[in-house]
Amino acid sequence: MKVSARNVFHGKVSAITAGAVNSEVELTTDGGDKLVAIVTQASVRELGLAPDKPAFALVKAPWVMLLTDDAGAHFSARNRLRGTVCKLVPGVVNTDVVLSLPGGSQVHVVITSEAVRELGLKEGSPATALIKASHVVLGVPA
Amino acid sequence: MKVSARNVFHGKVSAITAGAVNSEVELTTDGGDKLVAIVTQASVRELGLAPDKPAFALVKAPWVMLLTDDAGAHFSARNRLRGTVCKLVPGVVNTDVVLSLPGGSQVHVVITSEAVRELGLKEGSPATALIKASHVVLGVPA
Amino acid sequence: MKVSARNVFHGKVSAITAGAVNSEVELTTDGGDKLVAIVTQASVRELGLAPDKPAFALVKAPWVMLLTDDAGAHFSARNRLRGTVCKLVPGVVNTDVVLSLPGGSQVHVVITSEAVRELGLKEGSPATALIKASHVVLGVPA
Repeated sequence: MKVSARNVFHGKVSAITAGAVNSEVELTTDGGDKLVAIVTQASVRELGLAPDKPAFALVKAPWVMLLTDDAGAHFSARNRLRGTVCKLVPGVVNTDVVLSLPGGSQVHVVITSEAVRELGLKEGSPATALIKASHVVLGVPA
Repeated sequence: MKVSARNVFHGKVSAITAGAVNSEVELTTDGGDKLVAIVTQASVRELGLAPDKPAFALVKAPWVMLLTDDAGAHFSARNRLRGTVCKLVPGVVNTDVVLSLPGGSQVHVVITSEAVRELGLKEGSPATALIKASHVVLGVPA
Repeated sequence: MKVSARNVFHGKVSAITAGAVNSEVELTTDGGDKLVAIVTQASVRELGLAPDKPAFALVKAPWVMLLTDDAGAHFSARNRLRGTVCKLVPGVVNTDVVLSLPGGSQVHVVITSEAVRELGLKEGSPATALIKASHVVLGVPA
């Protein structure tokens, strides 16, 4: 399978919390990075999601926000991935920022070049990627 | 009405599955292409959605992912629209890919030009558009 | 806190409607503009959201659609913010459109330059921003 999404996290299901309609599925990569997805219970059944089952998470880069200096603030978005900027590919309007997470995963984030300047992002800057759990698509390999 | 979204699918409601909180609404175009949206039951009531009722679905092009060689993989995203690439408008960073579906609908997808190269997309390539049902906005005409 | 999202609405929680799984949270800015977010009840508890509590809403500009001439049409998206185009920053592919709302808030919207032409948008044009409530991230300051 090839996919256009710039973020593909491969790992195993590490937790499933079933709600009345949706389930919260936590994926842990080999390096220990974690990502939470909210999917319907129908999807959990159809994909056969269960603890330790191999799965992958897809996130398009424009769906990710970046934060800096966020000490103390709280957010409704379930995924707050702290890392370090390891690469910036600047365009006229948008910049592709790559964040390196402690477990070795990389997160591609597309934000405006104006935001890059405002946040003072450069290689080595600490930053937090904010991803809504409902924006994560889960898949299981063939 | 004029809308900025590059994807506007006109059709009729072909099925409604009511859940505890949300409803899954299936729209079928005149040509037979289908798109599923998840909306609140309040929206179903306010829009008067019911089988055979004319409606339209709005999807912004950057919200769509493209897949190739996806035989066997399963996804939590409800809409997996198989089609053929009929047009590519390449930019420096992003490319607008247009997919033609069997029923005649077209799907605009904005992905990075890097992804276009990785997936080897060109006119005539088979590809699958992946759209989360919760990302689809439904409307009914005046 | 600094955030890459081009839209940050500061205000107070003006209403919370609890559902079985999610809650609908309405934020009102000082100027009176309103934005509705759908978040999990777990988020409502963790953020301590309650009427009159200061909070902010984050929305990335590419998640917003623009409508014109929408008299009579109805949509599943909960946020339909009517305003006036006050600025356009055109790029080759995309344009950043800034909408001014009656209460003084500004909404940044990234749409294709093709859509700008089709909708005939220019400074002073009336337009409606359409934002899904489930695309809004809520935060509370430290």
